[in-house]
Amino acid sequence: MQSSVVQPDNLWSTRRYAKQQKIANAKKYTDGMVIATADIVRVLEILICPGDKVVLEGNNQKQADFLSRSLAQANPKVLHDLHMIMPSVGRPEHLDLFERGIARRLDFSFAGTQSLRISQLLEDGLLEIGAIHTYIELYSRLLVDLIPNVVLSAGFMADRHGNIYTGPSTEDSPALIEPAAFSNGIVIVQVNELVDDVTDLPRVDIPASWVDFVVVADRPFYIEPLFTRDPKHIKPVHILMAMMAIRGIYERHQVQSLNHGIGFNTAAIELILPTYAESLGLKGKICRHWTLNPHPTLIPAIETGWVEHVHCFGTELGMEQYIAARPDIFFTGRDGSLRSNRMMCQLAGQYAVDLFIGATLQIDAHGHSSTVTKGRLAGFGGAPNMGHDPRGRRHATPAWLDMRSSTFQGDDTYLARGKKLVVQMVETFQEGGKATFVEQLDAIAVAKKAAMPLAPIMIYGDDVTHLLTEEGIAYLYKAESLAQREAMIAAVAGVTDIGLAQNPQTTARLRQDGLVAFPEDLGIRRTDATRELLAAKNIAELVRWSDGLYQAPAQFRSW
Amino acid sequence: MQSSVVQPDNLWSTRRYAKQQKIANAKKYTDGMVIATADIVRVLEILICPGDKVVLEGNNQKQADFLSRSLAQANPKVLHDLHMIMPSVGRPEHLDLFERGIARRLDFSFAGTQSLRISQLLEDGLLEIGAIHTYIELYSRLLVDLIPNVVLSAGFMADRHGNIYTGPSTEDSPALIEPAAFSNGIVIVQVNELVDDVTDLPRVDIPASWVDFVVVADRPFYIEPLFTRDPKHIKPVHILMAMMAIRGIYERHQVQSLNHGIGFNTAAIELILPTYAESLGLKGKICRHWTLNPHPTLIPAIETGWVEHVHCFGTELGMEQYIAARPDIFFTGRDGSLRSNRMMCQLAGQYAVDLFIGATLQIDAHGHSSTVTKGRLAGFGGAPNMGHDPRGRRHATPAWLDMRSSTFQGDDTYLARGKKLVVQMVETFQEGGKATFVEQLDAIAVAKKAAMPLAPIMIYGDDVTHLLTEEGIAYLYKAESLAQREAMIAAVAGVTDIGLAQNPQTTARLRQDGLVAFPEDLGIRRTDATRELLAAKNIAELVRWSDGLYQAPAQFRSW
Repeated sequence: MQSSVVQPDNLWSTRRYAKQQKIANAKKYTDGMVIATADIVRVLEILICPGDKVVLEGNNQKQADFLSRSLAQANPKVLHDLHMIMPSVGRPEHLDLFERGIARRLDFSFAGTQSLRISQLLEDGLLEIGAIHTYIELYSRLLVDLIPNVVLSAGFMADRHGNIYTGPSTEDSPALIEPAAFSNGIVIVQVNELVDDVTDLPRVDIPASWVDFVVVADRPFYIEPLFTRDPKHIKPVHILMAMMAIRGIYERHQVQSLNHGIGFNTAAIELILPTYAESLGLKGKICRHWTLNPHPTLIPAIETGWVEHVHCFGTELGMEQYIAARPDIFFTGRDGSLRSNRMMCQLAGQYAVDLFIGATLQIDAHGHSSTVTKGRLAGFGGAPNMGHDPRGRRHATPAWLDMRSSTFQGDDTYLARGKKLVVQMVETFQEGGKATFVEQLDAIAVAKKAAMPLAPIMIYGDDVTHLLTEEGIAYLYKAESLAQREAMIAAVAGVTDIGLAQNPQTTARLRQDGLVAFPEDLGIRRTDATRELLAAKNIAELVRWSDGLYQAPAQFRSW
Repeated sequence: MQSSVVQPDNLWSTRRYAKQQKIANAKKYTDGMVIATADIVRVLEILICPGDKVVLEGNNQKQADFLSRSLAQANPKVLHDLHMIMPSVGRPEHLDLFERGIARRLDFSFAGTQSLRISQLLEDGLLEIGAIHTYIELYSRLLVDLIPNVVLSAGFMADRHGNIYTGPSTEDSPALIEPAAFSNGIVIVQVNELVDDVTDLPRVDIPASWVDFVVVADRPFYIEPLFTRDPKHIKPVHILMAMMAIRGIYERHQVQSLNHGIGFNTAAIELILPTYAESLGLKGKICRHWTLNPHPTLIPAIETGWVEHVHCFGTELGMEQYIAARPDIFFTGRDGSLRSNRMMCQLAGQYAVDLFIGATLQIDAHGHSSTVTKGRLAGFGGAPNMGHDPRGRRHATPAWLDMRSSTFQGDDTYLARGKKLVVQMVETFQEGGKATFVEQLDAIAVAKKAAMPLAPIMIYGDDVTHLLTEEGIAYLYKAESLAQREAMIAAVAGVTDIGLAQNPQTTARLRQDGLVAFPEDLGIRRTDATRELLAAKNIAELVRWSDGLYQAPAQFRSW
């Protein structure tokens, strides 16, 4: 590669100089840009310095787990006080880094199974939290005030020049690698397979110009089918709620483009599009454009022509062949495999879709919700990015315009803006009989204990346009006061304390005024909400719908 | 490249099939993936079909102008009814496409000099508007419901395999190309220079796997220094306002990271950081991290150590050598030249910075503002993306927390969220004596005439946290009612009708209550606001600050 511009003096190129030094020191362990698998711990000790900001790719569907396991083996006398920046803290060794004194500070987005241990390490003084972010906030800060020194990423294949084929889970890689590649940071990518030349790669997802080192992992990176929901667990109550969503929200507001969170509720919606929604004559009128991971439960809707396009945050295990066989629907490369991109899909889910629908663990009387429960710093992932009204949006769609306030009059109606539809879809009680509607969110106690300036709220009440429970739908965007909003929430809160405190006459009036709708108000008979409506009742039927292309992971196979 | 997955049947691969057909038909005019310059019109007629969605890269700093000029020469009997999708409509031939009947529908973000003609074509029935978007909305829709058939982009250099070096204005290319490259669209990139091999490129910005054709342009793409403001035009009133911004906003709220719009007001802020702000002892405390195009007026602040990092939407003509010599500050590739990225910089400017400050042409009594004036459909560009509170943000900074409402009490304080600071900085009268503060925005009349569902508002009043005029600062985020907000706006509206209608006693009370601050309330003497405070008083002094590295374009050179 040529250098087309003048070289700076050292005063202004400390990062470049530091990088050159590190690379020179690592030279004896590398063959060009390839690090020998067995030398990785030693090389990480050279390429990373104490105090460095280190981005570690932990994704939903792609883990730089060879690199994280190796980093956790580093000598804490050599490598200490690292500032880890991680989209997802999902593996035990992610926290071993802190326990062993290699890392000290953590900025992250999501921590599923590791959330309890984060809280404990925090209490023990072994870990400091920078902040808990949504995904695109975290990516954004890599360009502003968290510019990384080192990025540890993962892909399927690399060539010897450093061109990377990420496989179908491109996910966060472009968003994580670019900030380091163009700020004299060091980019190290673990791959399952090394090939000689670019022509041996299915395609290039990350060009070699952005990558400093590749290393072949000791075993393929870990991936699990996080977004698969077995239809056999869908209950009639989910189907009733799904019918309400279709009738009372999707049809009413002409929702053309949308994002579904993960769960049995949204899986039920996906599975009754070809049956219930079809019977309402809605095909081609709603749910045409999607931003979501390739949920297997979307297969029947795709096969029956409901779905025009799906853009994906990441992939889903078992869906590879099906996706490759449906290139009109999914974003795929010339090689035929999926190209996902979480940053772009988050943008699309914010700025280009009509609706987000998702679930939560707790909702308070104001409509604020959180998945953080006692002792667990679970983080946000992407839900707050999806679950708010992007006020920088300026184009109109029918659903978006439908959310305009009716208080604007005359010429001022031209100043009334629409809103993204943000739907919270929850049963009033969780598994085990815990009420979803609570007096105070656990998130407040968690914030107090961890000395956070504000509670980790997943979705704020004033961002929620619709609250959907098994009782009915509260059309919160119509609320003209906070008090009215709270009454609407209570009207669908069932026999929780918040629901019971409501005067039934208030609820009756809200129904009359069209602010709340129960199933019967929507022309839905509760007795129709049976599993018969599901286009697929189990995984085997999904496989059949896919013509055998969907290859269900072992844990979902029961036939 | 290998194909690692099964090939789909035609039912599900209509886009792939259409692409293969087009490419086969173009084969006789192409040498591999290289289109001969002289054949471009003919090849475009083959690769594009009537009705196709065609993305045409019109950027601030990079124009696919050879491709747009060529497309405008196509035969309207062959190519018609195209749906053009363009970030920026900036060149005459962009609209010739509509006048000649080649294109019919337009989705766009920004139209500077062409805005009047768009309105005329609309009136004449030769052009339909899809929507006017902000930049990232437009990129987002390319993944959802405006998936392109063809993308026409531009770069500095390509190799014969299709690897692209965009040069320092990577700008929109990644955001425009990815949606087509992974949906069986066709990607055509014009370049100034073709080289044989990837090793002959300074670096790869877009990998060959994403590109279908390259063509050498008849001349290098057009670029103009849009973001350069000559300090010689900065007036004492700009300096007074800049002092208020630093004292009353940046210092007060500890603004660490920010985005400056373009104009003499913000240029004045940049130029008094090393003088006025330095005298206040603010270095290292404010304005450390920036997201903006490389404004030449930022050079003195960079040279005096104010600026830690700058991430750029695009480049600025003349700044190439300076940027390359300051890699600790700017995002540059291994080759040394800038890597800009508008999508990522827009994200950073939304989610990772404390403050946006910009100007506008009209503000109404509610604080709504617009740059759309009679007969001109100017579009939005990125201002609404920068100029709103991103409600999907969850991390806290001192400035952001400072915007919390004081109405929350007890545990509820944990539910109070901060806000991005959105500052409108305007003189009460524009050049030529036109009032900036108006009873009704022209945008409303424009919307009515063009049958748009809502007025093209640049920044909505409820998104503005601070309004800064030569009179003073209105701390709008503190307003507890709409009426109070309007009084605060009137208090700084000077001798415009809106300002004169205000009872001076009301203004006095607002000042006492700290809701409005005049220069004297901030300890600023109006007589101190002289050009002596400017670290550079003209372009020649900027060049001197840069040690000759800034190479000012001819139109700015007067020495």
